[in-house]
Amino acid sequence: MSQFERPNIAKMQGYTSGEQPQDGRSIKLNTNENPYPPSPAVAAALHTFATDQLRVYPQPDAKTLRQAIADHHGISIDSVVVTHAGDEALRLAVTTFVAPGGVVASTEPTYSLYPVLAQIQDAQMFTRDLAADWSLPDGFADDVNAAGAQLTCVVNPHAPSGYLSSHAVLEELANQLHGVLLVDEAYADFVDTDGPSSIAMLVREQENLLVLRTFSKGYSLAGLRLGYLLGHPSLIRPILEKTRDSYNVDAISQAIGLAAIQDQAYAQQTWADVRRDRETLAKGLKVLGFNVSSSQTNFVLAKAPIHAAAVDLYQALKDAGILVRYFNTPRLQDCLRITVGTAEQNRRLLDQLAQLLSR
Amino acid sequence: MSQFERPNIAKMQGYTSGEQPQDGRSIKLNTNENPYPPSPAVAAALHTFATDQLRVYPQPDAKTLRQAIADHHGISIDSVVVTHAGDEALRLAVTTFVAPGGVVASTEPTYSLYPVLAQIQDAQMFTRDLAADWSLPDGFADDVNAAGAQLTCVVNPHAPSGYLSSHAVLEELANQLHGVLLVDEAYADFVDTDGPSSIAMLVREQENLLVLRTFSKGYSLAGLRLGYLLGHPSLIRPILEKTRDSYNVDAISQAIGLAAIQDQAYAQQTWADVRRDRETLAKGLKVLGFNVSSSQTNFVLAKAPIHAAAVDLYQALKDAGILVRYFNTPRLQDCLRITVGTAEQNRRLLDQLAQLLSR
Repeated sequence: MSQFERPNIAKMQGYTSGEQPQDGRSIKLNTNENPYPPSPAVAAALHTFATDQLRVYPQPDAKTLRQAIADHHGISIDSVVVTHAGDEALRLAVTTFVAPGGVVASTEPTYSLYPVLAQIQDAQMFTRDLAADWSLPDGFADDVNAAGAQLTCVVNPHAPSGYLSSHAVLEELANQLHGVLLVDEAYADFVDTDGPSSIAMLVREQENLLVLRTFSKGYSLAGLRLGYLLGHPSLIRPILEKTRDSYNVDAISQAIGLAAIQDQAYAQQTWADVRRDRETLAKGLKVLGFNVSSSQTNFVLAKAPIHAAAVDLYQALKDAGILVRYFNTPRLQDCLRITVGTAEQNRRLLDQLAQLLSR
Repeated sequence: MSQFERPNIAKMQGYTSGEQPQDGRSIKLNTNENPYPPSPAVAAALHTFATDQLRVYPQPDAKTLRQAIADHHGISIDSVVVTHAGDEALRLAVTTFVAPGGVVASTEPTYSLYPVLAQIQDAQMFTRDLAADWSLPDGFADDVNAAGAQLTCVVNPHAPSGYLSSHAVLEELANQLHGVLLVDEAYADFVDTDGPSSIAMLVREQENLLVLRTFSKGYSLAGLRLGYLLGHPSLIRPILEKTRDSYNVDAISQAIGLAAIQDQAYAQQTWADVRRDRETLAKGLKVLGFNVSSSQTNFVLAKAPIHAAAVDLYQALKDAGILVRYFNTPRLQDCLRITVGTAEQNRRLLDQLAQLLSR
């Protein structure tokens, strides 16, 4: 049989997504979904959507939604491009700024999609290990520059640890890097702070900064696939006008996204609830002997008690109908990554773990 | 200011889509939308969709919809990948099979997105002019092979002429080509035939054949962005498992696509209506002195009468609130591409043209 796929595609592995059972019976604490339903405004937008409108092409540039996003962040519309969830945003950053044979930089560990996107582009991946507390390692910018990275992806707050780097650290990093810095703020809505949880405002000044946001987590819309990139207009323009698919966001998603972002009161209540339950969950896990990293996201990284193997706990929970995430990689193989569920789901998880650990 | 975008991106032009006024007042005969609304089954699927389901990720591989598509075409599910409209299908074919520096082949004229996708991939475009009757030129396969094309895109029925190549011609072309042949069947639903209007069945045997289909035209769903690729499993697998975004089709689109493809009676009635009105429109244009190519699509290519400039007619129609498509390229600059509208829309177009030509 002939091989038609490119050699770099043939030799790579695809991205492995978390398990997505569609039976509705499992307690899903494995893929960082928001435990609360989308806003009632989303339901209204969906159920009053004029079906006949689907006959025609959508707004090519999603102008109405982009303006609402720009207003939300206090920046200009030409600093916004809407994408088909965060995945498309990341792919477009690679397509636009990283030449084949070029370099994408990140940390280890990080979101496991980054190296997959680099491989598809036939680019190299350069990573440096995070410090013991999951902060960026000393000399990160120098090493990335020496490696010649065109694009550096840093998820903040970090996945899977939940660690939050400060705005000052990221601004300094952007200033030092020779290439583009993409700060992946997929979980920024859950940051426990009185100040701004996003570095979005920096894109007005910083010519090499992209900020990724998604509706998947904060707005309970993982099923919709909607996200956006913020950046200096000189970075956004080639994505908006050249590299994205011409009509990359469908008409229904544009309408739903608008309804979701305009109902801030509802969204912010779910974030407050998640923050509250995150602390309860972390405390409960600590009582059971887990070592839990301080988290600013909607999940916690919990290192299993000495006498228990994380992989066995993962499997036993799964057998009991509770899904959490297990990564078989050097620094994570002793850990479970557990999404913050509803209070009831968290309680059932803790009860099940207590049973398993008492055997 | 630093330039961060890749040099090939910096120097290219983006795709220019047709005008998409959102005012609802224009008669839109410029972007080949179906003039009839989507099936009532689509409206039902949309308005009964359980909003809470958006909280979680969709089926990653759109298995239910893929199975329905496979059943519809009488092929195996592993020959189907669902995409975010035809645009994503085309991009994924380039990403998966064409190396940077490689070659994408097509005809001249053709769908103007093909060269844009080649430029994004930093690949070369090789084209040959169609014959006078818009059929594939003699020696096309030999020339494409000599150019070293990894991917050849042929739209059938052809846009913007409406010409239909036979299955025998395309099967022969697939057999001759050294690379992958993608047959873009965006308009195949409108083919006027008692036999099969698609070469989909050939993908069971032909190792280098991809067939693109879309819900945009035939199912009146341009606003939804839903399409699919059919192909030999050896071609589909790397797209399904590696190069597409992990959750490339959202939950609502999966539900609506299923409702649409299962209501064949409704869709086929709209196709029959479009075919009937296509003939009426073509006759009316001929009476006005246009030379109209025989079309197997939902549009006609009409060469303006000797004494009238197509570009002036385009502008005058636009001023009167009727949008058609004008291409300022060598073989098309005397022509208007006119989408088949409802009987009433077509009549108003013909009336307006009659007025303009009688001045």
